[in-house]
Amino acid sequence: MGAISSWQWNCPVEVSPASPRITLPHGEGARLTRRLITETILPRFGTPPFVLSDAAHSVAGGNRLALTSDCHTVSPLFFPGGDLGSLSVYGTVNDLAVSGAVPRWLTCGLIIEEGLPLSVLERILDSAAEAARRCRVTIVAGDTKVVPRGAADGLYLITAGVGELTDPVPTGPPSIRPGDCLIVSGPVGRHGIAVLCARNDLGFDPAPASDSGPVLDQVSSLRLSAGTQLRAIRDATRGGISAVLHEWAIDSGLTFALQDTDIPVTDDVRGACELLGLDPLYVASEGTIVAAVAPECSARALRELQKLEACAAAAIIGTAEPRGISPVTIRRAFGSEQPLDEPSGAPLIRIC
Amino acid sequence: MGAISSWQWNCPVEVSPASPRITLPHGEGARLTRRLITETILPRFGTPPFVLSDAAHSVAGGNRLALTSDCHTVSPLFFPGGDLGSLSVYGTVNDLAVSGAVPRWLTCGLIIEEGLPLSVLERILDSAAEAARRCRVTIVAGDTKVVPRGAADGLYLITAGVGELTDPVPTGPPSIRPGDCLIVSGPVGRHGIAVLCARNDLGFDPAPASDSGPVLDQVSSLRLSAGTQLRAIRDATRGGISAVLHEWAIDSGLTFALQDTDIPVTDDVRGACELLGLDPLYVASEGTIVAAVAPECSARALRELQKLEACAAAAIIGTAEPRGISPVTIRRAFGSEQPLDEPSGAPLIRIC
Repeated sequence: MGAISSWQWNCPVEVSPASPRITLPHGEGARLTRRLITETILPRFGTPPFVLSDAAHSVAGGNRLALTSDCHTVSPLFFPGGDLGSLSVYGTVNDLAVSGAVPRWLTCGLIIEEGLPLSVLERILDSAAEAARRCRVTIVAGDTKVVPRGAADGLYLITAGVGELTDPVPTGPPSIRPGDCLIVSGPVGRHGIAVLCARNDLGFDPAPASDSGPVLDQVSSLRLSAGTQLRAIRDATRGGISAVLHEWAIDSGLTFALQDTDIPVTDDVRGACELLGLDPLYVASEGTIVAAVAPECSARALRELQKLEACAAAAIIGTAEPRGISPVTIRRAFGSEQPLDEPSGAPLIRIC
Repeated sequence: MGAISSWQWNCPVEVSPASPRITLPHGEGARLTRRLITETILPRFGTPPFVLSDAAHSVAGGNRLALTSDCHTVSPLFFPGGDLGSLSVYGTVNDLAVSGAVPRWLTCGLIIEEGLPLSVLERILDSAAEAARRCRVTIVAGDTKVVPRGAADGLYLITAGVGELTDPVPTGPPSIRPGDCLIVSGPVGRHGIAVLCARNDLGFDPAPASDSGPVLDQVSSLRLSAGTQLRAIRDATRGGISAVLHEWAIDSGLTFALQDTDIPVTDDVRGACELLGLDPLYVASEGTIVAAVAPECSARALRELQKLEACAAAAIIGTAEPRGISPVTIRRAFGSEQPLDEPSGAPLIRIC
């Protein structure tokens, strides 16, 4: 659209060169995203049931429903292990699943850049449809907008989902108690690294693959084995498990103490992270969950989880403790407990 | 993002210069949009309950729900009579209302271009929140993505909505019978003309204002006064009332015969249309509906509708007839019945 953005026409707000502006880290899913949501969005849209992430719970007549929405702007559209289409379906299905719902219906909005080859669109839609079949959800409605060249980048998919809550719904981060165990369902950071490598053509061979996929079986396993002892559960997307644990620390008032050597990381993710100067704890997964489980059933929950093919590397990676030196800490291989900072500022953008 | 689009990285589909590509008219809401949906999207996402427009109906336990989704990419973000924020809420609320549902919950996704002034975002969100309050819906969940400069144009809002169906749900276009009357709730084409004039700074004084607003009261009035005699109802958005009637003609097998002199058009819209070479029948409204009502209650339905402040100009503009020379016809002031072509190709883009 050239130099003039659409907001500059008829803009009723005075904008000076010094006006605060949205920056890329505002979309990273970490501290600046939370500030944007809590300071700019939440005060306008009201507090509960508005949720920062995952799904809001509502009651329709006798039915308890969960609702969620995700905008998917991943670049590139195709990456090892997935693509925009399947990622959009799994992202929304997973948000519903970790909120305690059985995903039922999705809507799918398309914002298409003029000039996108029809074959690319078809391939992405094929992939979304296949993902929906795999998750047994129905895509029931959609919307299609085409914007001129330069007003989008290829294709954005926006999914919203509705699920039906089933008991016992995990009670959530405020119910986490000191001593509770943190379980991760597989190696962390695979999605973010796969997309970064694909985007920048870093030449890894084989290229790292995303873990993009449904977490329905993982969630079912944990809910079945831990029941009401399953306190909270989340898919570790933007900001990685660090972002999830920092949010939980705010909601619970506790410290989450991680043991570095217990956290599963694949060799290729570790290698790429070293090369790129990243910490896998801050890098997104798209098919891997973190759960807080009462200590008395954590061993059994882990054992059951590991029976799933995708979760062979599941592990207990830390515990909840009374609030200590920092909301999240990590004990590295050789060393003492250190604060793990909240992610902020590293522009891992457009990975989902 | 410069010359390389994200689909060009790792694209698994062969794309030649001659490959069919998405063009702007694919997003116009008319013939090419319908072809894209029926040939490319529907075969992948399955047939019913997937819907071309408005809302899909689903059953959750004992509850009958309506679901819908809209992507809003209007340019400019602010225009006389509305802005992106209120337009997004009303658009989704209206889709639910015309499908026979009481709108309850919305989700709201934001795709923000890096560099957008925070004050512009705040103004848009204020407007969305105010619109939600006016419609008594709750925005329950959201998602925020930031994309680099040039990968969006300012701000896109994507809303999805859930409503609860209430009886009697209008039976829809297939139930329209020869003799049924077509009622329009107000002057047509105001939204599209307002946005076009704002975008191109055409210098009309006063600038034409959009009709962007909720149609809840209009729909309630018609449902109450016509009951089961209300066959079908639609908000005449992209493609205008011509697009709505062409869709209804396909679904009903009938011809819709319009009387040009009965169609309410404001002077400023008529003037702008003459200047721009447009026909107001093809231009979007965003707070005006078309309804098909059985002849025996059409006079009463119209009278009740006209009692609403926004609907003083409501009118009966035509009738359904057995299929004749064309799916939609119009009798101009001095002349015989002529076919009204289906809108296709006039790039009235980014008006919603």
